[in-house]
Amino acid sequence: MPTALELVNALLDDDAVARSLGITLGAVEAGRVEIRMPVAAAMVNGHGLVHGGYLFLLADTALAFCCASLDKPSVTRAADIAFLAPAREHDTLVATAAVRADAGRATIIDVRITSGETVLAEFRGHGAATR
Amino acid sequence: MPTALELVNALLDDDAVARSLGITLGAVEAGRVEIRMPVAAAMVNGHGLVHGGYLFLLADTALAFCCASLDKPSVTRAADIAFLAPAREHDTLVATAAVRADAGRATIIDVRITSGETVLAEFRGHGAATR
Amino acid sequence: MPTALELVNALLDDDAVARSLGITLGAVEAGRVEIRMPVAAAMVNGHGLVHGGYLFLLADTALAFCCASLDKPSVTRAADIAFLAPAREHDTLVATAAVRADAGRATIIDVRITSGETVLAEFRGHGAATR
Amino acid sequence: MPTALELVNALLDDDAVARSLGITLGAVEAGRVEIRMPVAAAMVNGHGLVHGGYLFLLADTALAFCCASLDKPSVTRAADIAFLAPAREHDTLVATAAVRADAGRATIIDVRITSGETVLAEFRGHGAATR
Repeated sequence: MPTALELVNALLDDDAVARSLGITLGAVEAGRVEIRMPVAAAMVNGHGLVHGGYLFLLADTALAFCCASLDKPSVTRAADIAFLAPAREHDTLVATAAVRADAGRATIIDVRITSGETVLAEFRGHGAATR
Repeated sequence: MPTALELVNALLDDDAVARSLGITLGAVEAGRVEIRMPVAAAMVNGHGLVHGGYLFLLADTALAFCCASLDKPSVTRAADIAFLAPAREHDTLVATAAVRADAGRATIIDVRITSGETVLAEFRGHGAATR
Repeated sequence: MPTALELVNALLDDDAVARSLGITLGAVEAGRVEIRMPVAAAMVNGHGLVHGGYLFLLADTALAFCCASLDKPSVTRAADIAFLAPAREHDTLVATAAVRADAGRATIIDVRITSGETVLAEFRGHGAATR
Repeated sequence: MPTALELVNALLDDDAVARSLGITLGAVEAGRVEIRMPVAAAMVNGHGLVHGGYLFLLADTALAFCCASLDKPSVTRAADIAFLAPAREHDTLVATAAVRADAGRATIIDVRITSGETVLAEFRGHGAATR
């Protein structure tokens, strides 16, 4: 049986969007996954702030990887995000996903996005297993 | 006093992310804004499906433009999205944002994303006025 | 085939909680239902304000009735609510539920709660059909 | 300076709704509060299931008590809840609230509702400090 890290690496191989955005893996265990994304110039608006959509995209990717780490490949059915502080050019964003609830085919995954010591966003997503 | 269209155009000029993603304006009136985004190859994963983060990004952009149309520039404080059907390569995504509630500095904006006749996602966001 | 009003009345007959709280029907059509609830002393805290849980309860009831009006009995799978203004003793709360999206067994229902001219809360709920 | 338990007890004294529903305190520390509520006959519909509004009400109360435990009295600005399993007559519901994020006047509080070993609901609420 593949390890959590193997499962997540397989998903990353398959996820052209994540790779094109420079997303890489941090610590991975079953049910808890950390990923990183450097802020690219294309993510930043005229005021030097990162478009919130990229924070959501990172969190949503972390959700998918967290479900994969449980060998439970899933799509996101719904999610909410609260933006607490802006991300800026040259930041490296870290998303840490952990399972909040696991009710069979449905999971609730919480993701925190940080940059250094600052919490930028809190995300909660609902995954639906695809098999 | 600028028209709703002038206000939204000024924000689009300022939003390098939106322009780089090919987002364009559809119908614009005060409190109701339609925008469009063609699906680019970079938004699509290995299975020909658009990463949900790009749908969120489009909806969040529509929220900002909708607040701008009211001459109430805003940042998104929090938002939720439900994914109802996947978007695919070569789709053109249409996001229609409308004001649900306007309580002074706080607004609630609902955004529907469609492709042709299909509803892909429903988004509700909370804007906070920046001045 | 029963009318929307007959369907909603049958659910109200079956809902001991709604009846015990004095919830009554306003205008009813398929996919759009208005209900009312007088604020009772038991709903009010020491400062004369209604506990937000009763606003949620009213909105959630409106969701169930709205699904019933479509002959699609449903349970609430998830919901969110934003509180915009407090309700007070002696208010009569009006909840208006309307279908936002109808994707087979899954529905999204938006509910606005008002007292007189004031919008007190905006609720969005996800119904899951039970048959 | 009052302890977390004293702060929460003072709020419970002030909250006629919570007391009338039989809500009592479990373990209390600063930033983490457990409360309990017995299911009353008035909370149950014709099928022996508890109306989801009462689960929300319990969770929302736990949020307020959790903010009080930090000496940060707060109102709920917005919240979402996912219902995972139904509560039934004669259950005793336990809500455990913990701080997820604390950004000055704004807090995010997560609340889990259980009955015995079963997770019934997961709630996330946004508190706004009142002073």
